[in-house]
Amino acid sequence: MDEFDLIRRITPKETHQRSLVMGIGDDASVYQPHSHCEEVVCVDTMVEHVHFRFDFSTPFEVGFKALAVNISDIAAMGGTPKYYLVSIAIPPHEDEAIVAAFYEGMKALADRYYMDLIGGDTVATRSDFVITVTVIGEIPKGSACYRHSAQTGDVVFVTGELGSSAAGLSLLMNEVNTAHSIDTAFFLERHKMPQPHIAAGLICSSFPRVTLNDVSDGLASELNEIAEASRVTIEIEADQLPKHPHLPLLHKEWLEWVLFGGEDFVLTGTIPETDWKRFETQCKKEHIQVTRIGQVKDDRASSVILKDHDQQTILMKKGYNHFKK
Amino acid sequence: MDEFDLIRRITPKETHQRSLVMGIGDDASVYQPHSHCEEVVCVDTMVEHVHFRFDFSTPFEVGFKALAVNISDIAAMGGTPKYYLVSIAIPPHEDEAIVAAFYEGMKALADRYYMDLIGGDTVATRSDFVITVTVIGEIPKGSACYRHSAQTGDVVFVTGELGSSAAGLSLLMNEVNTAHSIDTAFFLERHKMPQPHIAAGLICSSFPRVTLNDVSDGLASELNEIAEASRVTIEIEADQLPKHPHLPLLHKEWLEWVLFGGEDFVLTGTIPETDWKRFETQCKKEHIQVTRIGQVKDDRASSVILKDHDQQTILMKKGYNHFKK
Repeated sequence: MDEFDLIRRITPKETHQRSLVMGIGDDASVYQPHSHCEEVVCVDTMVEHVHFRFDFSTPFEVGFKALAVNISDIAAMGGTPKYYLVSIAIPPHEDEAIVAAFYEGMKALADRYYMDLIGGDTVATRSDFVITVTVIGEIPKGSACYRHSAQTGDVVFVTGELGSSAAGLSLLMNEVNTAHSIDTAFFLERHKMPQPHIAAGLICSSFPRVTLNDVSDGLASELNEIAEASRVTIEIEADQLPKHPHLPLLHKEWLEWVLFGGEDFVLTGTIPETDWKRFETQCKKEHIQVTRIGQVKDDRASSVILKDHDQQTILMKKGYNHFKK
Repeated sequence: MDEFDLIRRITPKETHQRSLVMGIGDDASVYQPHSHCEEVVCVDTMVEHVHFRFDFSTPFEVGFKALAVNISDIAAMGGTPKYYLVSIAIPPHEDEAIVAAFYEGMKALADRYYMDLIGGDTVATRSDFVITVTVIGEIPKGSACYRHSAQTGDVVFVTGELGSSAAGLSLLMNEVNTAHSIDTAFFLERHKMPQPHIAAGLICSSFPRVTLNDVSDGLASELNEIAEASRVTIEIEADQLPKHPHLPLLHKEWLEWVLFGGEDFVLTGTIPETDWKRFETQCKKEHIQVTRIGQVKDDRASSVILKDHDQQTILMKKGYNHFKK
């Protein structure tokens, strides 16, 4: 594989953003930010055999997901993604076609948002693929949705459904029931090609006070982060948590997926009760599923409580922690 | 190693940039760009056993260099670095102290430029360390130094000395003469902790038409990129190429290091003859070494020619190409 040939192959033939001054082809890229906006930046890495496997996902799907998880972080701030940079460490003897397919997967998603690939690096490694994506987005000044502004009485909500990605992974690992009547394709798709909730995030950022996280490490983990940052207690109702109707058919422990599974990349957060109806209406108008799942309580314990009929359980993060031995 | 503990350890206690709205601690970072500036962005990856070895460099030095090579790309545009994001893939059973030392090495360099660490990711990998750094800088609107504006008659220059980094690597690999009289510490330092030429880049961007590259892949490669982008021929004089006086003592093939060694992270480029004197004076005033090494010729062959007394040689890129088998 020749680095220069590969770069030629993956360099975009055209760009979308008019604010881009110089894309790939110099030492760094240059763009003109919008004067009424703030810039939003994040980076995420996916490692072969840790975050993805080629017997589960195609290179196209891996590329798609590598960008999706980053766009989801921009969505969780209420921002609009604009640019991305990609760095790939490539094992010996790998086919250029695999690397090109990563970029095609990313481009398929990027084009939906008129995002431009504006930089990157391709290097050799002795073993597994490592894909690092940086995404730059923007948001109107002062509109970003942080974690620290939840207040007593706020509604707790989630966009989309929970637990689907974990169910998809369990299907890939042959751990669950796969009767004919179950829509397995739905769960597999959610795991392999998650859809970032940019449109929902944009609605959130149009309201004056919304806290927001994307569900990457699991609902319990995300709500704990909001509870900690805002110093509030969050109560959610087990029977309100949105899930695909087939989810409980797959495994009796399906609630674990809903609470701790993660990688759903839906958004969860809080909004004042007085804004809830208008928020719900706007989401419906744009065909965005949004579900009220609980309330912020007047208690500075920074905890998350799951109510299941008469039972109350404190939910710990239990999110995926890469280094836990 | 616990990911959350590690993140706590590496999260900055204070920040420098007043335009930073939200640093590490939410889904993405948010900053307010300066309205008279353009944003400059780049990313670079260093892989253990490919780009660095722990028997050659300490983790502190590896971290320093990982950031330095990125800041150098900002310098090569004439920009000022502001923010950086770091993603590290960590092999099993590695000590948290090693990872912390990477970040300390980066911070030592970042603090010089009042740069803030605003994001990142720490993930597990099965084998070697992979460090990816993204740097965001800024530059006054329209002032960036690209590669495509060289014109006939321009002076070709280089800041600093060439070949020192390659000499340092050869010293580490015990390939060269190491007589007592040779300043080996100088060469080792240049290889292990290269200094990006931000101040020189800033002077370049204050002139109306400068082409600029940083010498990462070797002088021949960088000048070929300028010659191609600008469609000009560049002639350089072998006896003008700046080098440390001890360089020729190390190895008889020292000119190879000067032309093709790379990783010097000095800047090379072109400037109109009419601006040269003023440029040279400004560099001197700021104690920046700048050397005139050749001229741009009226010829659209997009090539680089080395003149050595009566002899003329066409210089090909021969830069380091990670995938060449």
